[in-house]
Amino acid sequence: MPTRSPTIAREQALALDAEDPLAPWRDRFTLPEGVIYLDGNSLGALPKAVPPRLKRAVEQEWGVGLIRSWNDADWYLAPQRIGARIAQLVGAAADEVIVADSTSANLFKVLIAALRLRPGRRRILGERGDFPTDGYIASGVAGLMQAEFAALEADAVLGAIDESVAIVSLTHVNYKTGRVHDMARITRRAHEVGALIVWDLCHTAGAMPCELNRDGADFAVGCGYKYLNGGPGAPSFVFVAKRHHAGLSQPLTGWHGHARPFAFVDGFEAAPGVTRLLVGTAPQLSLIALEAALEAFDGVDMAQLRRKSVALTDLFIRLADQELSGFGLASPREAADRGSQVSLTHAQGYPIMQALIARGVIGDFRAPDILRFGFAALYVRFIDVWNAVAVLKDIMATQAWAAPQFRERKAVT
Amino acid sequence: MPTRSPTIAREQALALDAEDPLAPWRDRFTLPEGVIYLDGNSLGALPKAVPPRLKRAVEQEWGVGLIRSWNDADWYLAPQRIGARIAQLVGAAADEVIVADSTSANLFKVLIAALRLRPGRRRILGERGDFPTDGYIASGVAGLMQAEFAALEADAVLGAIDESVAIVSLTHVNYKTGRVHDMARITRRAHEVGALIVWDLCHTAGAMPCELNRDGADFAVGCGYKYLNGGPGAPSFVFVAKRHHAGLSQPLTGWHGHARPFAFVDGFEAAPGVTRLLVGTAPQLSLIALEAALEAFDGVDMAQLRRKSVALTDLFIRLADQELSGFGLASPREAADRGSQVSLTHAQGYPIMQALIARGVIGDFRAPDILRFGFAALYVRFIDVWNAVAVLKDIMATQAWAAPQFRERKAVT
Repeated sequence: MPTRSPTIAREQALALDAEDPLAPWRDRFTLPEGVIYLDGNSLGALPKAVPPRLKRAVEQEWGVGLIRSWNDADWYLAPQRIGARIAQLVGAAADEVIVADSTSANLFKVLIAALRLRPGRRRILGERGDFPTDGYIASGVAGLMQAEFAALEADAVLGAIDESVAIVSLTHVNYKTGRVHDMARITRRAHEVGALIVWDLCHTAGAMPCELNRDGADFAVGCGYKYLNGGPGAPSFVFVAKRHHAGLSQPLTGWHGHARPFAFVDGFEAAPGVTRLLVGTAPQLSLIALEAALEAFDGVDMAQLRRKSVALTDLFIRLADQELSGFGLASPREAADRGSQVSLTHAQGYPIMQALIARGVIGDFRAPDILRFGFAALYVRFIDVWNAVAVLKDIMATQAWAAPQFRERKAVT
Repeated sequence: MPTRSPTIAREQALALDAEDPLAPWRDRFTLPEGVIYLDGNSLGALPKAVPPRLKRAVEQEWGVGLIRSWNDADWYLAPQRIGARIAQLVGAAADEVIVADSTSANLFKVLIAALRLRPGRRRILGERGDFPTDGYIASGVAGLMQAEFAALEADAVLGAIDESVAIVSLTHVNYKTGRVHDMARITRRAHEVGALIVWDLCHTAGAMPCELNRDGADFAVGCGYKYLNGGPGAPSFVFVAKRHHAGLSQPLTGWHGHARPFAFVDGFEAAPGVTRLLVGTAPQLSLIALEAALEAFDGVDMAQLRRKSVALTDLFIRLADQELSGFGLASPREAADRGSQVSLTHAQGYPIMQALIARGVIGDFRAPDILRFGFAALYVRFIDVWNAVAVLKDIMATQAWAAPQFRERKAVT
């Protein structure tokens, strides 16, 4: 990477922290000693509100309230209630978002729902290099619905949107590079040709502002466990624009998507709106953890969060330019085109990342050669960025990454 | 109900508890003071192993281990590991059961997988009066797969199984009445005509012995939050007989069902065996609660558990005969035909159940007129049965149920 001047000193990072209006938010999280956590784009850190809330849910609501807590502790409406909170973060109305199942399962539901809204068309357009589950699910849907799924290179997608396309299904922020799609522009193009759009917001929600309704999105799905900090495998959210509610139909017609689930009638009758995207009984403990986690966003100005996120990733790139050699930059250098992560490339990416983790700087590796660093602006400091690059520089200078134990592949990377 | 003699006295119930070999197991559960909990068939009681395990998962594994816990705390293999534990309770091999998603979602997957194994056939046979989600999901699948779903009366199912049928999909123990189907006989009949069978074990697993492989079952699904005590909305389990693993195909092809999820390749390549039933990232906190809950079954002889369960339900029926009038018995009087619950009927069932709950005897109501009482043999005592009937008798004698507050319908019944 090119070296830039002037040199950025440690004191500058400390000065940026001192004037950071979001600095107090870090105290809403538990972060282990000796760790610089740059993997909130994979699993968000633990918000302090979660443990006491979950303890109460388990010991009081489940242990004492037992079955009564479905009514008395409002378990029943948790999917809608948490959906309404997430709606605020993605530019949607409260009744357009619901929490259910996994991102993959929700994508399956909305792809079929969208195909049913475009009965004359059978093409689903996606992007090569999007998070693989999106393509896997689209292929599964295509196989089931006599449809066709085509994944194109990112810069070829816009030009390929024509009247044959039923659905454009894209991830807003790429998981590997952090590249951001222009939501308004691509959505407009899809609508010009009568197609529908599905946005995957896994690396968007909680990381940067998002305006689903302003930009005209039809459907969206997203993850609860990355920048929303909902805990490992937290349930996913799904958005459907209000104009599609009346015609919304998906095949996973479980009882929680029924208009009157506790009437126990034989025939299925879809609940109004996004509630018909519910399937079975939701995993309440995971839901409750997600709900408590979202309190960390109380009082956050998302524009301010974005400014800090840009400043963090800018600082990381400038420091990498200044201190490192032999690395490539896989993320856009232009801040407007970048989410809240920076990805470097290196042929020895895997052992380098393992060596970093062993030194307490936690990012992750994505095959074949990407080192990902996520910057969750609610708890990552500028000094963390400075220290992380210093550790990486040292690992390269000492060749610490070349030790044999850092080459052993783990099950989860 | 007919009155039987001789009269059963309170002392007899106490004597039964004194000689109950499973009595020590009650201490593995937290049960609130002043409550007789007869709704473990809806939400199991809290096992004492859960709160400390969940606290460790949240504070140490998530809070300190962060992303590293996918490897270091073995989060990654939880679906297989918990599946293997449940396999022991349902007569399956360790690698034939996996934990994922909800019962409804798993039923969706195995119905489509089964249809794909019987390409020339398009009829799914079910039972009228089974838990509604089973029929809703079967209808959803039928709509998607150009198949037909027919729900027949319970006693008409066996005779309707012919060469036109692709799948027989039945619940082993009926949720309303507790009636048990003859798994071996119906499975045999399905196989005679070349059909496949799917068993819903929601009211079986953990409540009574079950021998999926001995009885030749093809597929099964079941619930983690009833007799398995996994907590509200605990993930579900799904069984596929080994002979179907090679040909197993389902359309929810998410990345956790991929052979190499962390290779992040574009094309879907199904994982071996039941792992290909995984979809997205599992809600770990709910999974971990379920895993800890299953420790309550350590050392349990399921035949002994069944003997106690039969004795509890027998005692309840005999006491109801002796003490109550105006109620019907919706459950089979013959123990062999009955699961671990007893259902009474009464035109005023709803307010009567609300009055019982207000007095600390917790069962539930199922429209139009059923009062359900579940007897989880790991923590329900014979004296609980005696006391519950005494309270019910008193509520009827004093007409306490007629108070206006007991008529207000709650969202969840």
